[in-house]
Amino acid sequence: MKKLAILFGSQSYEHEISIVSAIAMKKVLNNELVFIFIDKNREYYHIPTSTITSKIFSSGEYKKCDKLFLTQDGFASKGLFGSKPLEFDTLINLVHGQDGEDGTLSGILKFYHIPYIGPRVEACVVSFDKFVTKTYAQNCDVKVLSYQYFHKDQEINIDDFPCIIKPTKLGSSLGISIVKDSSELDYALDTAFEFDDTIIVEPFVQDVKEYNLAGTKIDGKFIFSIVEEPSKEEFLDFEKKYLDFNRTSQVNQAEIDENLTKKLKDNFIKIYNSTFEGAIIRCDFFVVDNEVYLNEINPIPGSMANYLFNDFNKLVNDLTNSLPKEKIININYEYVNQIQKAKGK
Amino acid sequence: MKKLAILFGSQSYEHEISIVSAIAMKKVLNNELVFIFIDKNREYYHIPTSTITSKIFSSGEYKKCDKLFLTQDGFASKGLFGSKPLEFDTLINLVHGQDGEDGTLSGILKFYHIPYIGPRVEACVVSFDKFVTKTYAQNCDVKVLSYQYFHKDQEINIDDFPCIIKPTKLGSSLGISIVKDSSELDYALDTAFEFDDTIIVEPFVQDVKEYNLAGTKIDGKFIFSIVEEPSKEEFLDFEKKYLDFNRTSQVNQAEIDENLTKKLKDNFIKIYNSTFEGAIIRCDFFVVDNEVYLNEINPIPGSMANYLFNDFNKLVNDLTNSLPKEKIININYEYVNQIQKAKGK
Repeated sequence: MKKLAILFGSQSYEHEISIVSAIAMKKVLNNELVFIFIDKNREYYHIPTSTITSKIFSSGEYKKCDKLFLTQDGFASKGLFGSKPLEFDTLINLVHGQDGEDGTLSGILKFYHIPYIGPRVEACVVSFDKFVTKTYAQNCDVKVLSYQYFHKDQEINIDDFPCIIKPTKLGSSLGISIVKDSSELDYALDTAFEFDDTIIVEPFVQDVKEYNLAGTKIDGKFIFSIVEEPSKEEFLDFEKKYLDFNRTSQVNQAEIDENLTKKLKDNFIKIYNSTFEGAIIRCDFFVVDNEVYLNEINPIPGSMANYLFNDFNKLVNDLTNSLPKEKIININYEYVNQIQKAKGK
Repeated sequence: MKKLAILFGSQSYEHEISIVSAIAMKKVLNNELVFIFIDKNREYYHIPTSTITSKIFSSGEYKKCDKLFLTQDGFASKGLFGSKPLEFDTLINLVHGQDGEDGTLSGILKFYHIPYIGPRVEACVVSFDKFVTKTYAQNCDVKVLSYQYFHKDQEINIDDFPCIIKPTKLGSSLGISIVKDSSELDYALDTAFEFDDTIIVEPFVQDVKEYNLAGTKIDGKFIFSIVEEPSKEEFLDFEKKYLDFNRTSQVNQAEIDENLTKKLKDNFIKIYNSTFEGAIIRCDFFVVDNEVYLNEINPIPGSMANYLFNDFNKLVNDLTNSLPKEKIININYEYVNQIQKAKGK
């Protein structure tokens, strides 16, 4: 079985839930694991698998672990006699939110030729920015709820209540408010703009059903999780979601008919497209009057949505053998040579 | 005046034109310059400014230059007594095409806290992928030519000729063909799919006028270049564009009226939005029946479109003082601490 590296932490509002997600991997993967922590200053550390706990991060104890640096030879620590490579076969990007889901780390992993499970740069951008997600979904022929988009410097006209106000670029419910009437508007706007310069405003649909479906593509074939109906509180706040990310036991399939299940899967396939290849993603859908709408795409779902899959361990190991490969561009200096010839040099 | 680093080369079809662009900076910038070359294997090299020529890259001679590595302390080379930092104030990303314009290097520069002129990750994705560009433009309320979008595994139905076939993700005319009738279709498709798995098909509009406008935003104010009407050959092929990237002398303002100039600027502003902050970009527009359509966004135009600006040197130096700043997220382990308390640890 392959040796897997788990990349987690980093400069993100979801730094802490990434730690919880990462530790959950110890319970659900049988592979030998190597933990690479990125601290808030974006320094890499190698955390020993046997002793990893959430406490060593909050206490700052992780700083005693080996610091890592990254070159074209991979991650390495400085040893007494030169650098000591950190060996693994495939990396799993488990950095939630900024850095992990906005394309930053995808760029780094690509540049340094590290094989990884996780969204590529473009997949990050179409899922991280809710404004781009809306337009991406529409172009994939997937419905989305109607919305308004505002920059904080713009005049903001919101007349339809209740509505939901969301910062454009964050996950995990941070900065999101349900606004029942105009009296609650100012506070909700302040909250959202604390996290981002732009917001998305959607109608709050009363009888909406929410269904989550995770999946991936292996050797050209889609593998789906069960469909989950997330817990029916008005809204999962950050703390509840946080505890949620810790989940490692299976949940029950939502009680929906075959027809709706097929609709959800069809919409998932349209979204996943070829853009999300290499990633295990979770699409959160709304269903209103039997129509399916995309709510959001989680390209790195909490604890990899392991609890939605029958055999998560097999899924991850199969996916490591089916990752998108970079096409190497041949650079032969044909044009530079021609110019030099033309110049008579 | 600030010391500027020029980042160029990398694993890209436009590797060679990036070299030409970079060398052009010596002629148009009065700042002290530091050249950082990325070779096709993505190794960084420090190329001495006094001796830089295109030949040292094609001959492989660059390998004798200092190899650089990147950490949170910036770029450095290995010296006899530990690492030797490469000092500069601001970097200019001049890597055209893959890596430079697809978000890869934007991710790296952000992660390593390097101040830079160039597109951020999201700006790259909305300009690098022509499919995403179309939807982005429409959402910015900017018109685009009608188009079809195909994956190479799909059935491809093209009935309207003449048309233009473009790989979705490349710049600099590579893989692009004008198809006059169906007999030319197969060859054009093969050419396009050699570069990308997906294509965009647009109608070839006979009497289209093409206008290029470059610009940036400094302290919240837009600075525009002159409007250029690019040379009226049927199509600039790669080699002609290549020579074009070498340009360092000013061109003439297109002969268009104030009304059209204003329209072009208005469309530029809508596209630039806040997404392209930190970058000097060139928008290439089509004008048909006095209507403006976006053709493409060049977030790193050839030789920075220096020849379109009255005072390019001042523009660059002003922009170095007006780059977007990252908001630092405070990570205090509040939730992890709560959980530890709840567990009684």
